[in-house]
Amino acid sequence: MRFIEELKTLKEQVKFDSKFDIDKNYENIVIAGMGGSGIVGSIFKELYTLKPVIQVDDYYIPEFVNEKTLFIAISYSGNTEETLSATDLAIEKKATVFTITSAGKLREKGVQNVTVPKGLQPRSSIGYMLMPLLNTFMSQSNKRIDNAHRILDEMDRNNEHIKAQAYEIFKDNRIPVIYGHYPFKTIAYRWKTQFNENSKILAYSNSFPELNHNDTMPLRDTYRKDNFIFFTFAPSNDKIKNRISITAEITKTFFVMIDPIGSSVFEKLFYLIHYGDYLSYHLSNYRGMMPEDVGIIEELKLRMKTAKRSR
Amino acid sequence: MRFIEELKTLKEQVKFDSKFDIDKNYENIVIAGMGGSGIVGSIFKELYTLKPVIQVDDYYIPEFVNEKTLFIAISYSGNTEETLSATDLAIEKKATVFTITSAGKLREKGVQNVTVPKGLQPRSSIGYMLMPLLNTFMSQSNKRIDNAHRILDEMDRNNEHIKAQAYEIFKDNRIPVIYGHYPFKTIAYRWKTQFNENSKILAYSNSFPELNHNDTMPLRDTYRKDNFIFFTFAPSNDKIKNRISITAEITKTFFVMIDPIGSSVFEKLFYLIHYGDYLSYHLSNYRGMMPEDVGIIEELKLRMKTAKRSR
Repeated sequence: MRFIEELKTLKEQVKFDSKFDIDKNYENIVIAGMGGSGIVGSIFKELYTLKPVIQVDDYYIPEFVNEKTLFIAISYSGNTEETLSATDLAIEKKATVFTITSAGKLREKGVQNVTVPKGLQPRSSIGYMLMPLLNTFMSQSNKRIDNAHRILDEMDRNNEHIKAQAYEIFKDNRIPVIYGHYPFKTIAYRWKTQFNENSKILAYSNSFPELNHNDTMPLRDTYRKDNFIFFTFAPSNDKIKNRISITAEITKTFFVMIDPIGSSVFEKLFYLIHYGDYLSYHLSNYRGMMPEDVGIIEELKLRMKTAKRSR
Repeated sequence: MRFIEELKTLKEQVKFDSKFDIDKNYENIVIAGMGGSGIVGSIFKELYTLKPVIQVDDYYIPEFVNEKTLFIAISYSGNTEETLSATDLAIEKKATVFTITSAGKLREKGVQNVTVPKGLQPRSSIGYMLMPLLNTFMSQSNKRIDNAHRILDEMDRNNEHIKAQAYEIFKDNRIPVIYGHYPFKTIAYRWKTQFNENSKILAYSNSFPELNHNDTMPLRDTYRKDNFIFFTFAPSNDKIKNRISITAEITKTFFVMIDPIGSSVFEKLFYLIHYGDYLSYHLSNYRGMMPEDVGIIEELKLRMKTAKRSR
């Protein structure tokens, strides 16, 4: 499938109606995943706060994990070595384990599993991996889902304005910095990773209000400021609105402001995800790169496996 | 106090022996703080995993907070508006609330408080704010504390090699990127913020193994790679050691490797913190900046208060 066709599946992904059966009480949720799969956990953690949610992006799990823990492992390939290691440790500690994967060893753990469709890049299947969590813990109305579908479809058919923004980044070789805020802090990080993987450029993210305690300081006096381009999302919260406009004014920084379409967090979330998809995709084209190529990451995974075997 | 004198207090800070009385059971820990105070919570969360630890860097608290939650608020000034807001919400929810502060409104909440010495910049009092948490939850032997004191004192007396590295950053106007790994992921972020506040330059951080799923991809093909300088810490874990050397090789990236001195995580942690202090301090001097000046952040805080009153 061509990469642009992969992107266009997102509107169908919001209709993915799989979910988990939760049949017992648990005190906390631990959610493991790396890269594009890890971002799914991070979005969930930002939105769902009825229980403590701890994110794991490493080989190890926290010591508190026990039979009162709900452990959710997400890996699109099902073969991510960090996630497999963390999952085995959680099974040993007798946590209730759920998995989300399209295939691989993670699917063979003999636990409750949601199988998502194969054949996409992990980062292009964000909706497939996120929806089972939302359906299980904070289900959305059909109206919202239909709205999100319509908003994404609209963007698929008309994204020339996003292409023009990609050109602005490209023509001066700018490094994107994306400043998110609740409930879209993770989306800033998602954009960063899409620039990394699709456009093959360095990119960075941070969040309001935290960045007002550090990142803000150099915005006036740093060297190389013109080498960067700063993005943020139009906020609905007055305090954050103030922070953005005061930051822009006293540091004399221009923020490219993306205004998410939608009447709920759910619709805005997917709008912003898709916007970042297209921005990084068009930039990839301007740079003459193949957006789907993640050969370096694949080579690194292979070399890690070889290193393990030869030890 | 001159900024360099502030930095030299760190070795005394590791001997700060205040702690909290924990007199009842709790299911989870929520730790609130912004900027330099937030980093203290983040270090604690990385080291202490016997209970779920959730970090708050915003005005709001998670919905699960209740009488079974231990809520720890950290603000050096005691007047950080986000932290005060979160603390009031935690008190309403009947959480057990502890505070760490040198003064301010946070000190007047009528809860268990550790008062740390006044007169430093918040970021220069990291030891004072961290030690009460370590003393309470994972106390260190006197031998380790003495070792850390000796290691920091040594660095205070001889840091010419760090000054030379600062010059390497300065002479080509490089943007530092710091790649941490467990148990020093937060230290990479601490360095980033020290470059921001002391040197007044943009800087970024990420962690192994997560960065092998995104950041690694552009390291070969990005534009502007030579505008950045990449730091990492010498790892003790074989998998991370492999990841660093394979990443360097296949992306043809040079990592400046900082080898922490010490025989425990505690000593290495403070060594790496202090190294970043000196590196950002010397760079500030080369740039002709005042390391202690955070006028922009102060102005922003003031403008936020004025905005609130006039509404």
